[in-house]
Amino acid sequence: MTGPVDYGAAFARWRGHAPDWSAYTGHAFVTELGEGRLPRASFLHYLRQDYVFLFHFSRAWALAAAKAATDAELRAASGVLHGLAHVEMPMHIRICAEAGIPRAALEATTEAAENLAYTRYVLEAGYSGDFLDLMAALAPCVLGYGEIGARLARAGAGGPYADWIATYGGSDYQGLCAEVGALIDAALVHRLGPDWAALPRAAALQARFDTATRLEVGFWDMGLRGARA
Amino acid sequence: MTGPVDYGAAFARWRGHAPDWSAYTGHAFVTELGEGRLPRASFLHYLRQDYVFLFHFSRAWALAAAKAATDAELRAASGVLHGLAHVEMPMHIRICAEAGIPRAALEATTEAAENLAYTRYVLEAGYSGDFLDLMAALAPCVLGYGEIGARLARAGAGGPYADWIATYGGSDYQGLCAEVGALIDAALVHRLGPDWAALPRAAALQARFDTATRLEVGFWDMGLRGARA
Amino acid sequence: MTGPVDYGAAFARWRGHAPDWSAYTGHAFVTELGEGRLPRASFLHYLRQDYVFLFHFSRAWALAAAKAATDAELRAASGVLHGLAHVEMPMHIRICAEAGIPRAALEATTEAAENLAYTRYVLEAGYSGDFLDLMAALAPCVLGYGEIGARLARAGAGGPYADWIATYGGSDYQGLCAEVGALIDAALVHRLGPDWAALPRAAALQARFDTATRLEVGFWDMGLRGARA
Amino acid sequence: MTGPVDYGAAFARWRGHAPDWSAYTGHAFVTELGEGRLPRASFLHYLRQDYVFLFHFSRAWALAAAKAATDAELRAASGVLHGLAHVEMPMHIRICAEAGIPRAALEATTEAAENLAYTRYVLEAGYSGDFLDLMAALAPCVLGYGEIGARLARAGAGGPYADWIATYGGSDYQGLCAEVGALIDAALVHRLGPDWAALPRAAALQARFDTATRLEVGFWDMGLRGARA
Repeated sequence: MTGPVDYGAAFARWRGHAPDWSAYTGHAFVTELGEGRLPRASFLHYLRQDYVFLFHFSRAWALAAAKAATDAELRAASGVLHGLAHVEMPMHIRICAEAGIPRAALEATTEAAENLAYTRYVLEAGYSGDFLDLMAALAPCVLGYGEIGARLARAGAGGPYADWIATYGGSDYQGLCAEVGALIDAALVHRLGPDWAALPRAAALQARFDTATRLEVGFWDMGLRGARA
Repeated sequence: MTGPVDYGAAFARWRGHAPDWSAYTGHAFVTELGEGRLPRASFLHYLRQDYVFLFHFSRAWALAAAKAATDAELRAASGVLHGLAHVEMPMHIRICAEAGIPRAALEATTEAAENLAYTRYVLEAGYSGDFLDLMAALAPCVLGYGEIGARLARAGAGGPYADWIATYGGSDYQGLCAEVGALIDAALVHRLGPDWAALPRAAALQARFDTATRLEVGFWDMGLRGARA
Repeated sequence: MTGPVDYGAAFARWRGHAPDWSAYTGHAFVTELGEGRLPRASFLHYLRQDYVFLFHFSRAWALAAAKAATDAELRAASGVLHGLAHVEMPMHIRICAEAGIPRAALEATTEAAENLAYTRYVLEAGYSGDFLDLMAALAPCVLGYGEIGARLARAGAGGPYADWIATYGGSDYQGLCAEVGALIDAALVHRLGPDWAALPRAAALQARFDTATRLEVGFWDMGLRGARA
Repeated sequence: MTGPVDYGAAFARWRGHAPDWSAYTGHAFVTELGEGRLPRASFLHYLRQDYVFLFHFSRAWALAAAKAATDAELRAASGVLHGLAHVEMPMHIRICAEAGIPRAALEATTEAAENLAYTRYVLEAGYSGDFLDLMAALAPCVLGYGEIGARLARAGAGGPYADWIATYGGSDYQGLCAEVGALIDAALVHRLGPDWAALPRAAALQARFDTATRLEVGFWDMGLRGARA
């Protein structure tokens, strides 16, 4: 990858230390999607699971708003939640409908084990930990998709998955990533000060980020497996 | 009171059984506000405390979204949260600024014990219980303000607090109350069936509603005490 | 299986409806363990993962105590937690030490994905739901081990895993299962009345039990995979 | 007060900075209890409310166990919970029975607003924050009672409340306080390092301790009000 995105200091640090970051952002699912040769069945399988994922991921952002310590954190988290629940999920329903998956089928999707593992890990990190634990567990998905989208968009993507790439590589989503990165940096400094990376807490947060990244790899694996799962 | 509002079946039942409902909706603070003779110091004291209240109350609605069982519940709760965090709280800041309370003073408000008791009770009900516990604890504030606003508006309110009355008695807020009432009724039937009122659980939910109503009375008492507190 | 155990009405119902109950309690890991031909590497791999599991499972029982609605529920849940944290976990450390796994190695165990998925699912069910959601998610492990232990013990077990079988098939653990079964039955009736199985809520609780059972199958799969994982 | 107790570094710091610490530990309720002239009605009123308090306080310690990051934290928190639920609460029931308050009356106690405010604040601090927020909110009660008990015991207490003083001033409870103080110090260093007091987080934790201390004052006020409440 050349010229990774800039979503703030914490993300730069966390992605740089996460053992599975390349395995996640450079996964075969991503490469095949970018080159337009991902099997349609895999993409549709992924889309259906992603719908279930988005429901639980929205709940996790709602939990972040519930755990906010400042008005700014509350507004930022509720803004992301609103975008997920009132824009991204309806868009997802529409895309699936166009792909021949009616809403009833979408809602009847059996949650794959990899999907369940990921979302419950993130939610539980938030419930048992605090706002920072939740941010570290949420970051790989939000910001990783931004990094992937930006890279694929720069590669000049066309083909069957151009819409997906345009969504995550586009300026709206990139702007969201910049905001989330700034939210995370501010939340860290607000609680732990500018030298937070030197504290024992930093290792625990890195572990949250690492585990969530590992679970993203599992999610792509599941997607690639497609209809077999 | 003549002709109370219609916000659904659960609210009608809960308010009918709550021992302190009249003490809450017919509190001296409300009467004096409606007649325009509430001391300005009491109103400003209430406004400042209400700003702190709104922050925690928003967190409670965020928690409701985190605990949603269906897409509809998620969208409804995140809609209320968005309205609180992105419309009502900014409006509150503006009203306070016009009343001579700058934002910094607002944010430096020391939370009164009655305020703290109420918001933490609601949040803890949600964390320790489930979505229904949270709804029963949230209902007295959301729907009680709707009932009060509608009654004062019908009484033909002018005077110094006409804006407050127009906000809660107006069609936007009344529409929100109808939506929240419908959300609660649907959530109850979705989990407990149409005969939920006959289950032991109904007594626990009534107790949530009753306690939250009792804490609303404490909030008005605190408001009336005004600058003395 | 002949003559399954009696741990109360809810368990009888839930196990009877769970699609994967036989896949769980009759898993190859269990059969091989009972017949003494489970590879040692698989058993040790399982033991190490089970230590990590017990930590998070203890946290889930602690959460049950936090969500108790009555003194009896509080005492029962804190009793199970105390047994896990002060008896079962130290015993586990001792057994592992005797098997050549020192405590430091035990605590350095990398949590397998199947392990993480299971424990976080249970904890999140408890945090987002209520006491009943948690009970339905906890039941397959506690009571399934009881059923497995009782069956293997009746089969007259000797061999290398006789201690494991004696633990879960023995009267102490069987007594615990009877108590947990009674706790669950009482908690259901206390909240939902004697006809709880006819309510919509019953399907959601069954889904909790089913998912946890499915995740138990994954845990045995992981154990059987052994050192390869 | 001469020669305060030693329950570790964090407690020494927190109590030294809490504005209401003297108002709490030197409250008229405490002084009158120590001198044996506290009205019996006040003491019995306090005992009844304290029984309700202990139930929710036990739930808060259970939540601490659910939020533990290490085996040592899990064991310590579950040990305190076990002591509360299986020793202190039964003892409380017995003491009340001897004082003419049967168990049914005890369980039918209406929770005073000051009681509710305190316990829900502590629980919500734990749910919305992390293990440290919970420790800071739990400390004033656990360790403040230790400090009060030790002081009254040194003053050579006899009279009608000698049992109460012997309980909290005695070596069992003083040992518990030393353990809880050590748990808190270790938890802080484990997460934030030895210089935690210089971090922004320290102010938030102090605020938790201060608010809980303020709510203890409210609890004594409520006790002193006695049967009037």
